Amino acid sequence: MALDHTGTISPAELRLAARNHGLPLEALAYDVTPAGLHYLLTHYDIPVVDPASFRLRVGGLVGRELSLSLDELRARPAVTHVVTLECAGNGRTGLSPRPVGQPWVVEAVGTAEWTGTPLRGVLEEAGVVDGAIEVLFGGLDTGTEDGEIVRYERSLSPADAHRDEVLLVYAMNGQPLLPQHGAPLRLVVPGWYGMASVKWLDRITLIDYEFGGHHQRESYCLRQAPEDEGVPLSRMQPRSLLIPPGIPDSGSRERTLAAGPVTVRGRAWSGRGKIVRVEVSIDGGASWSDARLAPAASDYAWRAWEWDWDAQPGEHELCCRAGDAAGNVQPLEPTWNLGGYINNEVQRVPVTVVSQLDV
Amino acid sequence: MALDHTGTISPAELRLAARNHGLPLEALAYDVTPAGLHYLLTHYDIPVVDPASFRLRVGGLVGRELSLSLDELRARPAVTHVVTLECAGNGRTGLSPRPVGQPWVVEAVGTAEWTGTPLRGVLEEAGVVDGAIEVLFGGLDTGTEDGEIVRYERSLSPADAHRDEVLLVYAMNGQPLLPQHGAPLRLVVPGWYGMASVKWLDRITLIDYEFGGHHQRESYCLRQAPEDEGVPLSRMQPRSLLIPPGIPDSGSRERTLAAGPVTVRGRAWSGRGKIVRVEVSIDGGASWSDARLAPAASDYAWRAWEWDWDAQPGEHELCCRAGDAAGNVQPLEPTWNLGGYINNEVQRVPVTVVSQLDV
Repeated sequence: MALDHTGTISPAELRLAARNHGLPLEALAYDVTPAGLHYLLTHYDIPVVDPASFRLRVGGLVGRELSLSLDELRARPAVTHVVTLECAGNGRTGLSPRPVGQPWVVEAVGTAEWTGTPLRGVLEEAGVVDGAIEVLFGGLDTGTEDGEIVRYERSLSPADAHRDEVLLVYAMNGQPLLPQHGAPLRLVVPGWYGMASVKWLDRITLIDYEFGGHHQRESYCLRQAPEDEGVPLSRMQPRSLLIPPGIPDSGSRERTLAAGPVTVRGRAWSGRGKIVRVEVSIDGGASWSDARLAPAASDYAWRAWEWDWDAQPGEHELCCRAGDAAGNVQPLEPTWNLGGYINNEVQRVPVTVVSQLDV
Repeated sequence: MALDHTGTISPAELRLAARNHGLPLEALAYDVTPAGLHYLLTHYDIPVVDPASFRLRVGGLVGRELSLSLDELRARPAVTHVVTLECAGNGRTGLSPRPVGQPWVVEAVGTAEWTGTPLRGVLEEAGVVDGAIEVLFGGLDTGTEDGEIVRYERSLSPADAHRDEVLLVYAMNGQPLLPQHGAPLRLVVPGWYGMASVKWLDRITLIDYEFGGHHQRESYCLRQAPEDEGVPLSRMQPRSLLIPPGIPDSGSRERTLAAGPVTVRGRAWSGRGKIVRVEVSIDGGASWSDARLAPAASDYAWRAWEWDWDAQPGEHELCCRAGDAAGNVQPLEPTWNLGGYINNEVQRVPVTVVSQLDV
């Protein structure tokens, strides 16, 4: 992956930023992210799929191959989970030198009500044959990587694929899945970075080898140098984001806030354990106070938090920091890697507090 | 407005690009843009508005002031129009030096089914008093511009405000208006650039002076130098966009296509007259062929077009060019202005055609 040392964004990256989009931070106000505000990362083009002729094929090392229509999938037991998904590249632009790619700041996250049928039931119906060591999920999205044609594919271990919460999803927030979120069918793997939740899913193959495709072993791996073997990414590290208080400047997005009591609000999540602590700082991380945590909507959804601040005139740098039950805590500084993944350093929001602000 | 001479995007502009987003060009496939794929430009923060306590206030030079709840607005005569909206800053990054601001490439467009009640009926009920020369529309979105607090406000002439097609809108694509598109109420002014369609609209004021607010006379004006008075923008110039054929590279978005017959498809629109012609070029604009035009869904919606191409191996630059009934035709080169507005130069899509492509 190329590196940028200039601190600026190239025209090619801008084309990506114009297509993909993050959650505007004020939309952290919603427990469930409204349609169109959930983060979106499309590797190639959004496929246009006819739901009437669509089939999910299940094959490979199975007792019997399946070909399931959307109606057949909808007729199966349905489950809805509230799930927070985050892009593994979130925070990429905080790294220096910056890995070239979709230039996420910190907003590549969203929470939706995903409705579908448990993957496990479909796997049990197909009957996984001894010798199958991975479940391979294939999407309909196709493009090129360094001149090679690549379809989007990812695998899971049979144990991960059989977890209760892993769903074959056809609805989002009570509506049919939108094209850009994988219509007519996608995988949702709660707790994992978004890359595992394969969109436009049309085939599941049980295989007897370790899948080594581009999106499994080339991208979405942690490495320090191109020759490193790389460690595939899986579950989300903890992160907290706050709603920037006050009002923004239209160009710089710098914030101005009136002095006085203000409740700072945000959301925190982790794929590695329940969020057990969120701390807030108004001095750039020099000192911290504990925020109040609200219950999460599910084991896979972010937790809302809030913290009361008596804002005094002057310049402040607000930060928040989440920790999970597994002992993972957000770092104050990024950890560099070649792909620009999982930079969960604490968010920093500079705010100018003025004695009066007549809005 | 500051100018960038480097050809790269600053971190501040990237924060804008991460929030705002364009229509992914493959989504030109849809007559009506699905939720979340319509372009989105938010000047400040997306307000969170309680629809239950919301009121639209109509005042100023009126016979009687109105305060209308959302239920009262919904109980009025309802109209649905299919309308194409485009941001006035679309094409900004095609200018050199580049005006600093939301760095649109060409995708700042979308088409939706907007449902609401005609503005005219509300104005007639309030009774416009003699001496009112403008209708001022106020949004709830607020921020700062060069240190000054600004609420989003725009005006129309009484004649423009009374046009049949101007709506007070509470639904989009058959669903309640989404927060980012102006919930619970917005103006939609078909034919005009998007800045006229004030979102989060909560007050309409009849005034006896020419409104000179920031978004009317400072931004959204054509000028060559900061001291110019500036010409306010109004109706959309024609533009055509094509769906880039073939498959994209994930990073560069460069396209690869298999040789052979391919139907090139796109959409064209203008706010100044019906689209009467779309031409396609495969040689960067050296020669042109006429595309077939489909009927538009309404007088305010884009027209689909298609053109049959027998793609031969090699490098090609696809272009398309729209013209309207008023005689406006897209230029081959941009016309520079300080704000980076209405650059409707023809789209250019480089494509590599290969003899075989096994997708």
